[in-house]
Amino acid sequence: MDLKECGYSLANRKQMRKKSIHPCQSTDKDVIKEAHAENVMTNLSNAYASDLLPSKEGEDLTKCFLLRVVNILLHYIEKTFDDKSKILDFHHPHQLLEGLDGFDLELSDHPESLEQLLVDCTDTLKYGVKTGHPRYFNQLSSGLDVIGLAGEWLTATANTNMFTYEIAPVFTVMETVLLKKMCGIIGWRETEADGIFSPGGSISNLYGILVARYKQYPEIKARGMAVLPCIVLFVSEQGHYSIKKAAATLGIGTDNVIEVKCDERARLLSVLWPQLAAPCSGPSTRSMTSQIFVRHTSSGCMWMADSVTWNPHKLMGVPLQCSAVLTREKGLLGACNQMQAEYLFQPDKVYNINFDTGDKTIQCGRHVDVFKLWLMWKAKGTYGFEVQIDRYMELAKYFYKVLKKKDNFKLVFDAEPEFTNVCFWYFPPRLKHIPKSFERDQELQKIAPKIKAQMIVEGTAMLSYQPCGDKVNFFRMVFSNPATRQTDVDYLIDEIQRLGKDL
Amino acid sequence: MDLKECGYSLANRKQMRKKSIHPCQSTDKDVIKEAHAENVMTNLSNAYASDLLPSKEGEDLTKCFLLRVVNILLHYIEKTFDDKSKILDFHHPHQLLEGLDGFDLELSDHPESLEQLLVDCTDTLKYGVKTGHPRYFNQLSSGLDVIGLAGEWLTATANTNMFTYEIAPVFTVMETVLLKKMCGIIGWRETEADGIFSPGGSISNLYGILVARYKQYPEIKARGMAVLPCIVLFVSEQGHYSIKKAAATLGIGTDNVIEVKCDERARLLSVLWPQLAAPCSGPSTRSMTSQIFVRHTSSGCMWMADSVTWNPHKLMGVPLQCSAVLTREKGLLGACNQMQAEYLFQPDKVYNINFDTGDKTIQCGRHVDVFKLWLMWKAKGTYGFEVQIDRYMELAKYFYKVLKKKDNFKLVFDAEPEFTNVCFWYFPPRLKHIPKSFERDQELQKIAPKIKAQMIVEGTAMLSYQPCGDKVNFFRMVFSNPATRQTDVDYLIDEIQRLGKDL
Repeated sequence: MDLKECGYSLANRKQMRKKSIHPCQSTDKDVIKEAHAENVMTNLSNAYASDLLPSKEGEDLTKCFLLRVVNILLHYIEKTFDDKSKILDFHHPHQLLEGLDGFDLELSDHPESLEQLLVDCTDTLKYGVKTGHPRYFNQLSSGLDVIGLAGEWLTATANTNMFTYEIAPVFTVMETVLLKKMCGIIGWRETEADGIFSPGGSISNLYGILVARYKQYPEIKARGMAVLPCIVLFVSEQGHYSIKKAAATLGIGTDNVIEVKCDERARLLSVLWPQLAAPCSGPSTRSMTSQIFVRHTSSGCMWMADSVTWNPHKLMGVPLQCSAVLTREKGLLGACNQMQAEYLFQPDKVYNINFDTGDKTIQCGRHVDVFKLWLMWKAKGTYGFEVQIDRYMELAKYFYKVLKKKDNFKLVFDAEPEFTNVCFWYFPPRLKHIPKSFERDQELQKIAPKIKAQMIVEGTAMLSYQPCGDKVNFFRMVFSNPATRQTDVDYLIDEIQRLGKDL
Repeated sequence: MDLKECGYSLANRKQMRKKSIHPCQSTDKDVIKEAHAENVMTNLSNAYASDLLPSKEGEDLTKCFLLRVVNILLHYIEKTFDDKSKILDFHHPHQLLEGLDGFDLELSDHPESLEQLLVDCTDTLKYGVKTGHPRYFNQLSSGLDVIGLAGEWLTATANTNMFTYEIAPVFTVMETVLLKKMCGIIGWRETEADGIFSPGGSISNLYGILVARYKQYPEIKARGMAVLPCIVLFVSEQGHYSIKKAAATLGIGTDNVIEVKCDERARLLSVLWPQLAAPCSGPSTRSMTSQIFVRHTSSGCMWMADSVTWNPHKLMGVPLQCSAVLTREKGLLGACNQMQAEYLFQPDKVYNINFDTGDKTIQCGRHVDVFKLWLMWKAKGTYGFEVQIDRYMELAKYFYKVLKKKDNFKLVFDAEPEFTNVCFWYFPPRLKHIPKSFERDQELQKIAPKIKAQMIVEGTAMLSYQPCGDKVNFFRMVFSNPATRQTDVDYLIDEIQRLGKDL
C-alpha cells in the first residue's frame, strides 16, 4: 500500500482533524465509516513516534497507527485459527540475527518511521509461532482465548501496577474476588484463606516453600538460614523442576530435595506423607501444584494442602502470565514478605489499606494478571471452564483409543487417560518388529527428535517429546488448546507416520 | 446503542460472512468502510464467548468484538491525554465490592453476553486510574507510550513463552539483541557479559544477590546455606526495600543487611566500598540498581558493578513489566539457575540450543517483556530516549526553581536536582511562620496525606508522599511521564495551595 494506491497522506490526517471527526464518540454512521477507512489506509512513512500522543494534535495519528496495528493483529488471529495455515515459518537463530528480507533486529541511535514499525510488527508475527493454531500441541499453555486477549489489551492500556489500591483500585479488588473464589473451589474457608498472583507457576511454587519455611521458623526472615536446622523437601519424583530451582534460590540446596517414588500413574498419594516424613524429625508443611480446574480439583485432595499453586494460564487457557499461590492460612504471605516501605504503603491513606496487597509479595511492581482471568470467568462462567476441560479429556481418550489400535504406535502408559496428556512412541517400519534392547532404544531415541524437526521445518504441527528415566524419547501429547478438534488429532497421527515411516 | 438505533443485529453478522467481507485483507476501500462500521455498530447482547473463534464461523464475530474493545480503548487513550479529564473517579474498596451502577465484580457459574463484557471493560477503565494522564506524578513508572502499548497488544496476540527458541524464536533473539545493547551501554564487553529479563526490578535485584552468592560459593546450589559462613549484604541506607525482601527470601536474613550511610544527596560512592567491607573477611561482589539511561548511565560508575538491574518500565517509559538483570560475567546466570528439565530443554533439537535461554532463570514460563522495548527502541532510537529523559531533567529543574521562589513551599534538599525527582513540603498559612519543633512537625506530618486524599477524591492530580528518617511526610514529585508539561507543573503547585491553604 503506498500513498498513490490508498489516496491518503498525512495531509488528510490533518484535514480530518479540522473536520473534528472523532470516530469512537460519534453516533453518525457515515462519519465512523469514513474515519475508520482513512485510518486503515493512511500511509505513515513520514510519521514518527514523536508525532503520536502526547504530542500536540497527535490524536488522529495515534488512532490511525493503533488501528493499523490492530488490523495486522486481526489478520494474524484469522490465520492462527486456520488449520490450512502453517504454524511457523522456521528459520535458524543466526538467520534472524543476520536479518531476513529486511527484517533487521539491530537497534539504532535514530528513529524508524511508523510505517516501518508496522512492517516490523508484521515480520515479528511472520517469523513467530502460532501458539493458538489447532495443531499446536507443544505446550500445556497453548491456544488463543479471544476474551483473554481482549483482557490483556485492556490491561496494557490501563498500564498500572498491582502494589496498591491507590493506583489499581479495580484490579486489586478483582484479585481479592478471584482469590476468594479459587480458595472456595479448593475447599478452604474463604475467610481464613489467602493468596496472591505471581509471575508464573515456578514463582508460585517458590512462594509455597517460602511460606512453609516461614510458618515453621519465623525467625528465618530476620536471621537467615544460619539459625535453622537442615531443612528437607519431599517431592514427587515426577514433581516439577521448579521445586529444585526454588530450593537452590531459597538457600535450601538441591541435595536437600528428596524425591519420593510415585505409582505407575505418577501419583503421590497424600496418605503416604506421614510414613515418608518418619525418618526426619520436626514439623512439616504441604504445598501442591495444580493444573486442573474446578470439578476435577474439588474431587481431589487439594484442600488438605497448606498451599496450592494454581496456573490459569495452563488448562484454563488464560494468556500467559497468570498464576496464583493460595495459602490455607490468612496473613502468612504478609507476615513472611512484608517490609512496609514508607514510600508505597503509607498508613495514613484515605481508604482501607488492607487492599494495598503488594507488600505480601516478593516483588515491588507487579503486572496486572487478574483482569484477563476475571473477564474470561465472566465470559464463560465456572461451567464454561468445566466444559472446556471436559472436551480436552474426551480428546485425550479419543487419541488414546486411536493410538491403541495402531501397531506402529505404543503408549508409554497403557491405560485410559485420567488427565489430558497422552505419551507415546512412534515406531518406523524398520524398528517395529525389533524387540526392546539397548540397541533398539538407541535408534528409537532418535525418532521423535527427527520427526519433530521435520514438523517444525514444514510448519505442519508442533508436538513435544522428552526422555524420562529409563524411557527413551517419546512424544508428549497434551490437550489444552481449545482450537483442537478430532480432525486435527487424526491429522497429527497421519503426519507422524508420513514424516517417520522412512526413518 | 441498541439494535434499533444502529440498525444491525447478529443476523447482519451472518450476512456479512456470506458476502465474504474480510476488512483487513481487502484493498477495496468501500468494503473496508462498510465492514468497519458494521463491526463497530453491531449489538452483541445475544452473542457469547463460545460463539467466538475457534468456534466454527466465529471469524466475523471475533473481529467485531475485538474492534468494539479497541474502540473502548481508543476512547480511553484520548481521555488519558486530555488534561481536562479527571485522573480517577475515586471510590472506596467496599463500594467496588458492593457493585457500582451495575458493575458487578462477583463471578458466576453462567456466562455473560459479549455486550455485557464490553460494559464491564468500560466500567473497569471508568473506575481505574489514568496513569498516562499529564497530571499523574504518582509513580516512577507512569505515562502511556503508544508504541509500547502497540508492542504489548502484539505480545498478547502472539501469546508465547520465553523459555525456548522453539516457541519464541523472534522474541528470544530480540532479547539477545537488547541485552547486548544494554551491556554495551553500561560499558561492559558485550561478548563477556550476560543477562535476562525478569518480572520486575525486585526480582532483578534478587537475581543480582543470587548470582553474587553463587559466584563466591557455588556449592550453595546443591548444599544450601547450611555449608556457608554468615553472608552479609552492604546496602545504601537509601537502597530499595527489595534488597531486604531478597535477603529474607534467599535465606540470608534481613539482620544481615547492613545499611551504609549516604551523603546528603543519597549517594553511596563506589570508592568507599573497600573501607566498608574491611571489618568483614571474605570475598565480595557488587550489584547495582539503575533507573537512569544511556548518557546518564555511561557517565556513572555502572561498569564497575558485577551486576546491574535495569528497569525500562521506569524512566524509559516502557509499559510495566519490563526489567532486566545484567551480569558482567557470562555464564553465571546459567550455572546458578539451570536444572536442565528434559521436557523443555532437549539437547537433540534442530537449532542452536544456546538460544534456549529459559533455564538461566528462576522461572519456567516467562512472559515476553522484550518486544515492547525493542519496538520502542526502533521507534525512538537511542537518541529518542535521551531526549525524553533530558526533558524530565529540565522539568525537574524548572519545578525546583519555581518552588524555591515560593515561601509556602520548602525543599527537602535545597540544591538543583541531579535527577528527575524533587521532594518538598507545603506549609499552609497557619504553619508557615512556626519554627521547626516536634509539635509543628506533628502538624506538618498530616498536611501531605490530607492534600493527597483530596486530590484523589477530586481526581485532579496524583502525587506521592512519604516520611523518611526524621523528616515528616513530604511530597515526592517524580518526572517520568512524557505527557507532563510546564503548565501541568504550574497547575500542581496551584492545586496544592488551593487544597492546602485552609488545613
